[in-house]
Amino acid sequence: MRLVKIRLNDKEEIAMITWNNLDTLESFKELSKVGRVDIKEAMSGDNGAKRVKEYNIPMAEGFTYNFAAKQVDADVLEALAKLAKEAQLTEKFEALYNGAVINTGENRLVLHQLTRGQLGDAVVADGVDKRKFYVEQQERIAEFANKVHSGEITNAAGEKFTTVVQIGIGGSDLGPRAMYLALENWAKKNNTFKMEAKFISNVDPDDAASVLASVDVAHSIFILVSKSGTTLETLTNESFVKDALKNAGLDASKHMIAVTSETSPLAKSDDYLAAFFMDDYIGGRYSSTSAVGGAVLSLAFGPEVFAQFLDGAAAEDKLSKNANIMENPEMLDALIGVYERNVLGYPSTAVLPYSQALSRFPAHLQQADMESNGKSVNRFGEPVDYVTGPVIFGEPGTNGQHSFYQLLHQGTDIVPLQFIGFKNNQLDTDVVIQDSTSQQKLCANVAAQIVAFACGKADDNKNKNFEGGRPSSIIIGDQVNPASLGALLAHFENKIMFQGFLWNVNSFDQEGVQLGKLLAKKVLAHETDGALKELSDMLNI
Amino acid sequence: MRLVKIRLNDKEEIAMITWNNLDTLESFKELSKVGRVDIKEAMSGDNGAKRVKEYNIPMAEGFTYNFAAKQVDADVLEALAKLAKEAQLTEKFEALYNGAVINTGENRLVLHQLTRGQLGDAVVADGVDKRKFYVEQQERIAEFANKVHSGEITNAAGEKFTTVVQIGIGGSDLGPRAMYLALENWAKKNNTFKMEAKFISNVDPDDAASVLASVDVAHSIFILVSKSGTTLETLTNESFVKDALKNAGLDASKHMIAVTSETSPLAKSDDYLAAFFMDDYIGGRYSSTSAVGGAVLSLAFGPEVFAQFLDGAAAEDKLSKNANIMENPEMLDALIGVYERNVLGYPSTAVLPYSQALSRFPAHLQQADMESNGKSVNRFGEPVDYVTGPVIFGEPGTNGQHSFYQLLHQGTDIVPLQFIGFKNNQLDTDVVIQDSTSQQKLCANVAAQIVAFACGKADDNKNKNFEGGRPSSIIIGDQVNPASLGALLAHFENKIMFQGFLWNVNSFDQEGVQLGKLLAKKVLAHETDGALKELSDMLNI
Repeated sequence: MRLVKIRLNDKEEIAMITWNNLDTLESFKELSKVGRVDIKEAMSGDNGAKRVKEYNIPMAEGFTYNFAAKQVDADVLEALAKLAKEAQLTEKFEALYNGAVINTGENRLVLHQLTRGQLGDAVVADGVDKRKFYVEQQERIAEFANKVHSGEITNAAGEKFTTVVQIGIGGSDLGPRAMYLALENWAKKNNTFKMEAKFISNVDPDDAASVLASVDVAHSIFILVSKSGTTLETLTNESFVKDALKNAGLDASKHMIAVTSETSPLAKSDDYLAAFFMDDYIGGRYSSTSAVGGAVLSLAFGPEVFAQFLDGAAAEDKLSKNANIMENPEMLDALIGVYERNVLGYPSTAVLPYSQALSRFPAHLQQADMESNGKSVNRFGEPVDYVTGPVIFGEPGTNGQHSFYQLLHQGTDIVPLQFIGFKNNQLDTDVVIQDSTSQQKLCANVAAQIVAFACGKADDNKNKNFEGGRPSSIIIGDQVNPASLGALLAHFENKIMFQGFLWNVNSFDQEGVQLGKLLAKKVLAHETDGALKELSDMLNI
Repeated sequence: MRLVKIRLNDKEEIAMITWNNLDTLESFKELSKVGRVDIKEAMSGDNGAKRVKEYNIPMAEGFTYNFAAKQVDADVLEALAKLAKEAQLTEKFEALYNGAVINTGENRLVLHQLTRGQLGDAVVADGVDKRKFYVEQQERIAEFANKVHSGEITNAAGEKFTTVVQIGIGGSDLGPRAMYLALENWAKKNNTFKMEAKFISNVDPDDAASVLASVDVAHSIFILVSKSGTTLETLTNESFVKDALKNAGLDASKHMIAVTSETSPLAKSDDYLAAFFMDDYIGGRYSSTSAVGGAVLSLAFGPEVFAQFLDGAAAEDKLSKNANIMENPEMLDALIGVYERNVLGYPSTAVLPYSQALSRFPAHLQQADMESNGKSVNRFGEPVDYVTGPVIFGEPGTNGQHSFYQLLHQGTDIVPLQFIGFKNNQLDTDVVIQDSTSQQKLCANVAAQIVAFACGKADDNKNKNFEGGRPSSIIIGDQVNPASLGALLAHFENKIMFQGFLWNVNSFDQEGVQLGKLLAKKVLAHETDGALKELSDMLNI
């Protein structure tokens, strides 16, 4: 046991939290000894129907989290509840949202939940009430977006902007892009669609060039997103865009805004129409509900839509406070994931949304999860003796069914699955073929997959035999809309957070991305030797 | 040892090939005993430079395959060469391209390489010279595409078609889509761009609806792609499209073509302007070089571009015939992958192209690889006692660096990496920032990553410590263009084939996708009980 005093923002309070490695917890040792559940048997017959009804807990915004097809039973759930308690998951989340320095490596608070609601005490940092600060930025963005939409802010010719282009990479790209794609059709259907959004991220010059070729630059507003104001890819692409604006005879400063920290060189530059602020307490991969997502989503869909998105996230965050794991879908999902990873030994997890709107949601979660928990040392910098974050991948269904599901069904490794399904699609066009709509077919497929994976099907021809025993859960909702999307995002963010607590890693830094950056600079400065010089020569650098 | 007589197409020849499980091969047992290579040490200093120069073998179309940062040395390579020989990789490929029934489960030949060239004897099946058949289809498509481009084939109003929309799923979608995206900018730059292409795949009705909303249907030509003519998603989406055409007052039969097998109900239907043919000897995931890719790519970029793509693939296929593993990049890549999976025990592989043009190439390889080799039984239907196909995932660099690379560098599992880099980008716009172009930055990053992963960097702060020892290879080319793209595709297709031979699985069927389809039908017919009925109710089906 290691008792650690943690500073709670400016109040200098002391929280009684102990940060222990997973394998030192008695409840984890107990969990390892609990009998394994045969889900093939458990999901068959009447018992299967009973499980589907019982192993189902409500989430915010009409979602339910159904874990009937996971390898759990009353004994496993009891052991998981003990683990949650011994690992102090609730207390740790409480410390986090009350402003503890949870990101110890970088000596930072972790406040992304605060962008969407106040879960606990006021958090004061650097002399500022942070909730007020985030709300203020949201309001400033709303005002700006409304002026763009009304035509109060226009291009130099007095014409309305029609397109918004986000320039950012990693967390400044994947999350906002996934959210934009998720809501584009919903907004069109519900008449809140204001401007098309595009995204430039890669340092490959063809990325910026082809996005620029696809938009009308004279009527485009560009958002430069970089917390530090020093991200190489983003600054390079900004230059690329400025050149394009200049070549079109336009004044770049009338076409660009910045989302950055108040201390960055971009914050007070005349190069931008306006600057909106985030801070060091929000990691890039958790920034979709901050100004990083706020600017582009408010411009694309209107500030009200962005506010609904935040409300949905806030509603799910509240559930994450519950100490009872059967009333806390994020905590339960996290615990089951750790059980699968550290007791059952499964090395990867697939995220499979049955909704084309969520086409890039798995790519966002891939970053959120793998960058947060892909760590080998605990929060004290000591190597851990157990595996941590799994590989995360996924594509929307039913597309994935015609692609990599072969391996999921009949491969030699078991891959736990996280399905997401919706009763309704977003647009109002559908077609009836063979007595069912496309939406019904979509839903029928996801239901069928859960049972196919769990129960399998015996066949004397072993090539056509399905062993079953492959675990999955499903989050079921009504429709992808702003509020439900927020709740879904918060679910996964908080699941990742709880898993980080269980693995005793710091989920909020990313030191693993530094070495590559450093060596790339050396290559560009021609300060290399050995293998790196040879490789650079081969690539004509 | 199991000697198996295989029928060589219509000639009824007997090839002397033995199909043995990997773990029965003496050379595999020897391989397991060879000393492990410490790539951290091997890639450091002068030795590292030497390795980069030596562990480098030429591919077609100007590519080289560099495996300096893989955990191999002379001893491992010798053992791999023995394994290749004992597993009869060359003889098995020879049997395949000469028309053996390699897809034994479905009693089919495997002829996708024949769409791009004649590697061996004439292959006669069903009384037809198959090479002639594929060339004939390519020529028919070329003629059709030329007529569309010249305005000889138009819509009912006599106006030229401007857009082509592919309707297909799985192999009829992922490959052609990835290839289209890879060549779109190249074609624009080189003035061979003819028509924009779009793709409808998901049964989610919002997919078809949003694609249709983004095109001018009156000037669009739709390609229905289904080998059997019975794929549920594709037929459903066809109906969706026909409704849209009808609602626009258009005659659907003047806007649609089919790519299917000659025996399918679509082959001779009056519903289509034309039908182009594939056959049962080309699996969906290997169909990019058949009419499945040919129709959409020839319409989008012109038949000459498609022909160059095939030529590039054919050139790489020829290298795959070499018995010497040092002259056969596909075979060597396959062998190293099996060594990593079955001896070193790594469960997944990341594909990381440093080119925005290849943004969906990893998704295509995810299908090609996981659907081919995600099997638990050998080609005789007997369970194997070793792991087979790994999980495959990836995103383009540098985007991935700001996402999941944290786990790749510092996570608890080692993930072997497959980099792809190009000396030149496709378009001619670039920008110099801090004395280097974006393209140079892109290349500097991929070179840096290889060394960072292999060598790591010690730091007393363990949170900033990089263990290194993480293996990667890189394929380096000049530029993504039609011929190089073909060579790259063939490289991976043939790598997967050789790995299937090593694992002794049938890489060319996909029985694992059947059960889900079957159960989905039951759900739609309301013929379910137990867990499946409950889940269906929850999803409002």
